[in-house]
Amino acid sequence: MTISLKENERLDELHRNGYYIIQNPEKFCFGMDAVLLSGFTKVKQGEKVLDLGTGTGIIPILLEAKTNGEHYTGLEIQEESADMARRSVAYNHLENKIDIVTGDIKGASKIFGAASFDIITTNPPYMTGNHGLVNPNQPKAIARHEISCSLEDVIREGSKLLKVNGRFFMVHRPFRLAEIMTTLVKYKLEPKRMQLVYPFVDKEPNMVLIEALKGGKSRITVEKPLIVYKEPGKYTDEIYDIYGY
Amino acid sequence: MTISLKENERLDELHRNGYYIIQNPEKFCFGMDAVLLSGFTKVKQGEKVLDLGTGTGIIPILLEAKTNGEHYTGLEIQEESADMARRSVAYNHLENKIDIVTGDIKGASKIFGAASFDIITTNPPYMTGNHGLVNPNQPKAIARHEISCSLEDVIREGSKLLKVNGRFFMVHRPFRLAEIMTTLVKYKLEPKRMQLVYPFVDKEPNMVLIEALKGGKSRITVEKPLIVYKEPGKYTDEIYDIYGY
Repeated sequence: MTISLKENERLDELHRNGYYIIQNPEKFCFGMDAVLLSGFTKVKQGEKVLDLGTGTGIIPILLEAKTNGEHYTGLEIQEESADMARRSVAYNHLENKIDIVTGDIKGASKIFGAASFDIITTNPPYMTGNHGLVNPNQPKAIARHEISCSLEDVIREGSKLLKVNGRFFMVHRPFRLAEIMTTLVKYKLEPKRMQLVYPFVDKEPNMVLIEALKGGKSRITVEKPLIVYKEPGKYTDEIYDIYGY
Repeated sequence: MTISLKENERLDELHRNGYYIIQNPEKFCFGMDAVLLSGFTKVKQGEKVLDLGTGTGIIPILLEAKTNGEHYTGLEIQEESADMARRSVAYNHLENKIDIVTGDIKGASKIFGAASFDIITTNPPYMTGNHGLVNPNQPKAIARHEISCSLEDVIREGSKLLKVNGRFFMVHRPFRLAEIMTTLVKYKLEPKRMQLVYPFVDKEPNMVLIEALKGGKSRITVEKPLIVYKEPGKYTDEIYDIYGY
């Protein structure tokens, strides 16, 4: 298949099902957080998945490769990113499996309707506010800072969008863990599984993966640590597995 | 100093300041959780410390050895344990530094008065309820199951007992982490520091250490993993350090 890339765009291999993704390194490229979230998320056969703030569509594309869900939707507020995501979906011949919708997370439950998904995934902006940002309109800033939506917006909409017993999967930063837990519980998403990602075995974690169950009872499984590097520059076997190398 | 031990009691060395503790292995002996909590708790010079549910006094005795606090109090509901704790305090000549009070955690803020401590420590019962317990009056059962007090009782009283900016230190089980976080926040104890204790680097954690700040803002530091065993039967260096061997 031929593909027309726009200025500064490139086509990156995903090491899954021969899939590729279009990215623009001048704007924003997906990080390890998205890949780890796709490894942490469990989708069962027949389930419908929505990714809130999908960017260039990395999470639905990886999940389509890794799981047997029936359908995947990505919601993205930035038209330029959504357009790249749609072209990646087309390039991988996934038009029947993945929809990319341009829209705002804050109104997601109005766009799709309440209780319309089995699974929500999200890799939302981690940083509060936009203090000191030179250009808060840049795609990178919108992906990283809570400019367009807050953690509470993401969790509130995620909860509304899920069916009872639906599951919510999120990657975030550990420094917001208390806020994440209390906000999930506030919106009836009970934290059921958590894994901390430590760059090295003797360092503080820099990511947290969380699964919450809509309407669940209070009891969480904290999983074994996910350690990224065996030594500087060398991933652990587990990370190679998740990346599919 | 001579000491009269009661039936089944023994005198165990603590590897700190030459201190010993009286224990009765037929009833209850302190575990690694108490030792790790004493290593995790930071007491500054001049501070007043209260340990809620002190058992045989292991936490105040270890903290007196490790920190420069002004005074340490242990509150214990079981008179038999409190009596052992008092005899250990006397044996170590710590009567001026440590008080052991017999009383109920549920009424602790009435016993001592609100805002009367800088530091609260607690190693409360981990298990909810007393389902299926053969003998819920046994010291072991009371130490392990929420028979005499619930997690919410401990956190509510701890919050009342602390001055503004006072710190609350607790060891608990990870499966209750979401409940711990939401209950702390409910009582204005903001989780500020957390460490998960993993028995082995590739296993789920079996303890969580938490520090919360009365009246603090939402931001938590998750520390590097605390790993207990290098290989079966062999502690990591960090655990040997905390034990003081």
